[in-house]
Amino acid sequence: MENFADRLIAAVERKGSPACVGIDPRIESIPDEIINHVRQRTNAGGRAAAALSFSREIISIVAPYVAAVKPQAAFYEQLGAAGMMAYAETLRAARRAGLIVIGDIKRSDIGSTAEAYAAAHLRETPGGDEIGAFTADAVTVNPYLGSDGIKPFVAAAREQGSGVFILVKTSNASSGEFQDLDCGGRELFVRVAEKVNEWGAELIGARGYSSVGAVVGATWPEQAARLRRIMPQAIFLVPGYGAQGGGAADAAPCFNADGLGAIVNSSRGIIQAWKRPPYSQQYAPERWRDAIEAAVKDMVADLK
Amino acid sequence: MENFADRLIAAVERKGSPACVGIDPRIESIPDEIINHVRQRTNAGGRAAAALSFSREIISIVAPYVAAVKPQAAFYEQLGAAGMMAYAETLRAARRAGLIVIGDIKRSDIGSTAEAYAAAHLRETPGGDEIGAFTADAVTVNPYLGSDGIKPFVAAAREQGSGVFILVKTSNASSGEFQDLDCGGRELFVRVAEKVNEWGAELIGARGYSSVGAVVGATWPEQAARLRRIMPQAIFLVPGYGAQGGGAADAAPCFNADGLGAIVNSSRGIIQAWKRPPYSQQYAPERWRDAIEAAVKDMVADLK
Repeated sequence: MENFADRLIAAVERKGSPACVGIDPRIESIPDEIINHVRQRTNAGGRAAAALSFSREIISIVAPYVAAVKPQAAFYEQLGAAGMMAYAETLRAARRAGLIVIGDIKRSDIGSTAEAYAAAHLRETPGGDEIGAFTADAVTVNPYLGSDGIKPFVAAAREQGSGVFILVKTSNASSGEFQDLDCGGRELFVRVAEKVNEWGAELIGARGYSSVGAVVGATWPEQAARLRRIMPQAIFLVPGYGAQGGGAADAAPCFNADGLGAIVNSSRGIIQAWKRPPYSQQYAPERWRDAIEAAVKDMVADLK
Repeated sequence: MENFADRLIAAVERKGSPACVGIDPRIESIPDEIINHVRQRTNAGGRAAAALSFSREIISIVAPYVAAVKPQAAFYEQLGAAGMMAYAETLRAARRAGLIVIGDIKRSDIGSTAEAYAAAHLRETPGGDEIGAFTADAVTVNPYLGSDGIKPFVAAAREQGSGVFILVKTSNASSGEFQDLDCGGRELFVRVAEKVNEWGAELIGARGYSSVGAVVGATWPEQAARLRRIMPQAIFLVPGYGAQGGGAADAAPCFNADGLGAIVNSSRGIIQAWKRPPYSQQYAPERWRDAIEAAVKDMVADLK
């Protein structure tokens, strides 16, 4: 099974960009054109159908430009079991489009339960039945429970050629509340980063990067620069670019001197481009596809 | 909307026990009788049907004895979208049986995404369509992202009369890796506990307890005793009793002098009782229902 880090780097080089598009199908942000085609748009099943349509449209628009997409499980889960079916279909559509698919699930639990999550999201569904499996190329995982909660994901990643991105320094405003606490001279996020190196040591690919990566927000460029030195072999998944306020300069410290080592995610900035300046001024609402395409092209250019 | 803490305490007093049964439908632990009745037991849909049947049986056996059940989302999620439908149905069956239902989801994310999870698990599905909603009376939440990730759950809890249990000191062996780190004279778990007090301050019910509680493992009695003093108004959800090695004496420090303040969970020790001594010696495999009932009665007696 090919190493995930190698696969991801190859995809970044093929597309010529480390850009990743976050697929967050918030129901209020789905174009009218799609919502109006759904017969029962006031119930969860209808909304799940709309979320899936929108997700598929996003995938087909951005696939020529980016290496990876990151569907956010929460927005599908909000639509109940029908939403989770839409999540499974979105993952499959993205993989069929040749994209690396990162399931943004932020799961974690004690060992035997973490195994079930790892099976759900990194392995095929038991019994070989593909319907409803949530299999992604990589997932995001929360470290609060320690190694017990991480190792089942790492084991699945080794066996499946998939990846794990550990939350290290998240992009949100209150991330420092616990992550920045001084734990014996180093912040908690540094202690987690040191463990990321440990967990990832056996999954280093031919290109020198590990399949165990780290989530590091573009909103914290100074911390990112330190983390880059602490985890030289980890690939950073960098949220916070675009709508959350981070720019290309903020994401720059997440890269190594080889120009590799990070993928930069934008969600709202791309998929809601048609609602946001400058694109909302240039494109009428019915040209939402063109606005999304323009935004993703601008992001790719901005990151160069 | 009645305060969750008050509702939970009333349920504990009505049943005369703080016992909670964890519903973990690991596919390999479902009785043959149920698996053999499922036509397509090798695919995810068939397995989800078996998981739901087993969950319903557990609910009807334990409902007379316990105040609460705690379905573990991971074991349903492992079965794909069909599994998530079984999860939704399990939550509904437990609520119909008059039980307090704690969705063990351990979710967390940045603010706007945490809102989607809170909506998925504490509110009814948008559009008023009940099919596939994951609405529980309370959920477990991971604190690593800080207040941004917690407050949407607390807001939903306030509006819905539901509860939130924050992971403070988890029951697993490696929980200390980060949770026990010294953060300026107090461990990280103490810093989280202090925040639990803050987050829960506005949700204190008539009985003096907050609807924002804490997960504190029965496997750490000394830390539990300290946490009991730090969070006098938080209800502890105590995993780790039974199969994970904790006994009634280990759970004792989780209670206040009023005999309240904690619910104690056992999962495998109850629902797999028919496979484990002493029950496996007393009951033939086809008497698995009797073994489960005996185990739950023994747990209730042990906690008295």
